[in-house]
Amino acid sequence: MPSQKVPDIVVGRLPLYLRALNQMAGEGKEITSSQELGTHLGISSAQIRKDLSQFGEFGKQGTGYHISFLIEQLQKILKLDRLWDVVLVGAGDLGTAIAHYAGFIDRGFRVKYVYDNDPGKIGHTIGKFTVKDISTMAADIESDKIKVAMLAVPAGHAQEVSELLVKAGIHAILCYAPTSLNLPDSIQVQYIDPSLHLQHMTYYM
Amino acid sequence: MPSQKVPDIVVGRLPLYLRALNQMAGEGKEITSSQELGTHLGISSAQIRKDLSQFGEFGKQGTGYHISFLIEQLQKILKLDRLWDVVLVGAGDLGTAIAHYAGFIDRGFRVKYVYDNDPGKIGHTIGKFTVKDISTMAADIESDKIKVAMLAVPAGHAQEVSELLVKAGIHAILCYAPTSLNLPDSIQVQYIDPSLHLQHMTYYM
Repeated sequence: MPSQKVPDIVVGRLPLYLRALNQMAGEGKEITSSQELGTHLGISSAQIRKDLSQFGEFGKQGTGYHISFLIEQLQKILKLDRLWDVVLVGAGDLGTAIAHYAGFIDRGFRVKYVYDNDPGKIGHTIGKFTVKDISTMAADIESDKIKVAMLAVPAGHAQEVSELLVKAGIHAILCYAPTSLNLPDSIQVQYIDPSLHLQHMTYYM
Repeated sequence: MPSQKVPDIVVGRLPLYLRALNQMAGEGKEITSSQELGTHLGISSAQIRKDLSQFGEFGKQGTGYHISFLIEQLQKILKLDRLWDVVLVGAGDLGTAIAHYAGFIDRGFRVKYVYDNDPGKIGHTIGKFTVKDISTMAADIESDKIKVAMLAVPAGHAQEVSELLVKAGIHAILCYAPTSLNLPDSIQVQYIDPSLHLQHMTYYM
């Protein structure tokens, strides 16, 4: 759908719009406006209109956006009109929390397997998962054609494990380890490091 | 130190520089360059030089940066030359993982108290914490002059709890609930929502 390359910062806001629209739909709303979305998200309405206009015409001047239509369009743009299987590597406290987290499935993602290299964790149960030996990971990813991984291993192991993931066919990695991965440009990587956010905020205090 | 207002996006990169520098220091390095930092982080060296120049002169053309000096300066700029006490609200799976996470203390933050409103969780132990009744939270925040909170409650309760936090004196909230908080502009808010990152990546797949 996009003819020119859309800036990555714009792409990054689309999931936020989608989340707000789903919340509105859940409250029974049918129509919204860029003003209302903007107030909800703390983003200017002009920014929202400009962002969405990069992908097409989703609303009419004066009548606003049909929420369910805009949800459907954003899901298509973000390739969320399917469910993505995900492998989770690391079954420590954080991996356990991620495995238990019920919030992925409604947003397009399903954890399929959980791996660890610790014999004390392999074979143990986390919710509905049995922790698998990391040595079987590559074969699972290949046979199930899994493209997305979440990495919840210690920082010192993250690079090595991420290379295993990429070699097995993973295209996108959500890295919870507090480090930067060095991977080919063709691999999507996003990071979650809560200390970075905390340190960003203390600057202003 | 900053005379003019530094763009927030620049401020947000400083913790990333700090993390990389600490990693280098941990490997025994003493000197680095914007090129080396850039390669490590996947950011251009020109960007790093420009960002740092907003805060002063930290290195000399040709000799690079003294890592320990730059770490010290960044810690001052980010107000990390002290330890910040943090309250954690929510003792579910995610709150439990956060309470167990050992990575905050070296980066300027110490979880002081953990709260929940569930009688089945109050009084229970998570690592070294005993989960406290949320009804005692405001008094603790006031008496201990705590300014930073982490919010790991369900999305439907996040707004209400965040308002309690702000009323008690909290200035900065790291929100793990998948929703947007509506708070005064004077309050710093950052969000962690893994699904947003996953959805951002699938756009490119």
